[in-house]
Amino acid sequence: MTGRDGGADLVPVGNTPVVILVRPQLADNIGAVARAMANGGLFHLRLVAPRDGWPQERAWRMASGADRLLDAATVHATVADAVADLHHVYATCPRPRHIIKPVLTARGGAAEMRVVTARDLRVGLLFGPERAGLDNDDMACADALIRFPLNPEFSSLNLAQAVLVMAYEWWTTADETISRTLMTNETRIATKGELENFLGHLTHELDECGFLKNLPKRPGMVRNIRHYFQRGEVTEQELRTLHGIVTELALGRRLRGRVEASPSTTDAVAL
Amino acid sequence: MTGRDGGADLVPVGNTPVVILVRPQLADNIGAVARAMANGGLFHLRLVAPRDGWPQERAWRMASGADRLLDAATVHATVADAVADLHHVYATCPRPRHIIKPVLTARGGAAEMRVVTARDLRVGLLFGPERAGLDNDDMACADALIRFPLNPEFSSLNLAQAVLVMAYEWWTTADETISRTLMTNETRIATKGELENFLGHLTHELDECGFLKNLPKRPGMVRNIRHYFQRGEVTEQELRTLHGIVTELALGRRLRGRVEASPSTTDAVAL
Repeated sequence: MTGRDGGADLVPVGNTPVVILVRPQLADNIGAVARAMANGGLFHLRLVAPRDGWPQERAWRMASGADRLLDAATVHATVADAVADLHHVYATCPRPRHIIKPVLTARGGAAEMRVVTARDLRVGLLFGPERAGLDNDDMACADALIRFPLNPEFSSLNLAQAVLVMAYEWWTTADETISRTLMTNETRIATKGELENFLGHLTHELDECGFLKNLPKRPGMVRNIRHYFQRGEVTEQELRTLHGIVTELALGRRLRGRVEASPSTTDAVAL
Repeated sequence: MTGRDGGADLVPVGNTPVVILVRPQLADNIGAVARAMANGGLFHLRLVAPRDGWPQERAWRMASGADRLLDAATVHATVADAVADLHHVYATCPRPRHIIKPVLTARGGAAEMRVVTARDLRVGLLFGPERAGLDNDDMACADALIRFPLNPEFSSLNLAQAVLVMAYEWWTTADETISRTLMTNETRIATKGELENFLGHLTHELDECGFLKNLPKRPGMVRNIRHYFQRGEVTEQELRTLHGIVTELALGRRLRGRVEASPSTTDAVAL
């Protein structure tokens, strides 16, 4: 058994590119590819002449639950057979040979695949065998090559990592997550009025305790304090905590003041 | 020996983020992380309390030549120690807890890290242990969290894949590769004048052979042929090949015409 009863409930959504592994060698890598595909919302896997045959139990063990992609994978004798029903084919290629062919970045390729699949055309994405990569005849079956921008001093990726980069780019091309936000959970971002209220409280206590007693310097000191507290977003809950900190520090100081003035009072024991 | 004599000549370039693996469990993963870092031009690795101690020979075997990153890795007892000399710290976190913290996408985080490092500030990037991820105290050491946009039905990445996504985003943020180009190698893109010259040659031969003999339809047919050949960029070398194809097909037809007209001539033998 290849563990086909388990795994995540990965149901294909929409028209997504087909990942085609050409002459893959290791079943472990095929499993890791399925996992990477699922990460990026790719569902359709085809294998061209897998070296050790198919199915291979090790693939399911490496798929981390992306079993259904492996269950549905199809095996083909040739690249031509694997792409016969597709309309556009891209070939990932780290070192393009002396051929005349469009070359896209991973991001450019993903954006183009989104456009092509939105036209109800079927797209395939070829990945070569682990060591040799795609040969010239494989690449001649493709409309365009995709080359990842990576450190040219160290650009070799393993098969699953190459698939992950494409799956990640495919996913992010349609993703609308805000690039920076403040996660506030149960609370909310404070308004400037609420911040002003806290700054008033703080300034009042700083006047009380003598921190701002140098009157010529006071306006500049207050401004500098304000600059600090204005720097980032603050939540309503954090402002309440800051109010509490100021109140308690001020209260502690007042109590300690009494203690220092009369060390034998019972108040001191209460501290 | 840990294979420390080999590997790629990975020399740190510029001010790049430090990758900090917090309580990593498997040496294999640490090696795979080094490889992924090198792919994206990250050079500095720190380990906080690696479970099995350090160094571990298996890490070097999984690094695919990124040995120097492992050779230079430092070990720290706590996250606080590992980040003490840094100015900004980001924590990758697939499932943010109920905390108040800025959250960035991988791309947003990479762009921000480029800005911060350009200010000569040192940046750290925390990755949690394989199973549990970063705990709440780890995350409290970070300025912001980074969460990858991935298929929410299947978002778990292994450690090296998570590092690869960040390393890839770090690299591409500064990469200026043109998103689509035509790789022409020894030749060059043909001009419209060169294309027109070919279309004239083709049309002439099609007139000669009678393909365009329906004169009322001829203008439309010629336009449709032009539409096809105008569709994509063509190189000067490809145009020469197309000229040759048209010439040879036309010549073959003429010779065959003669053969059909006079099957006993010696010309037929020459075919």
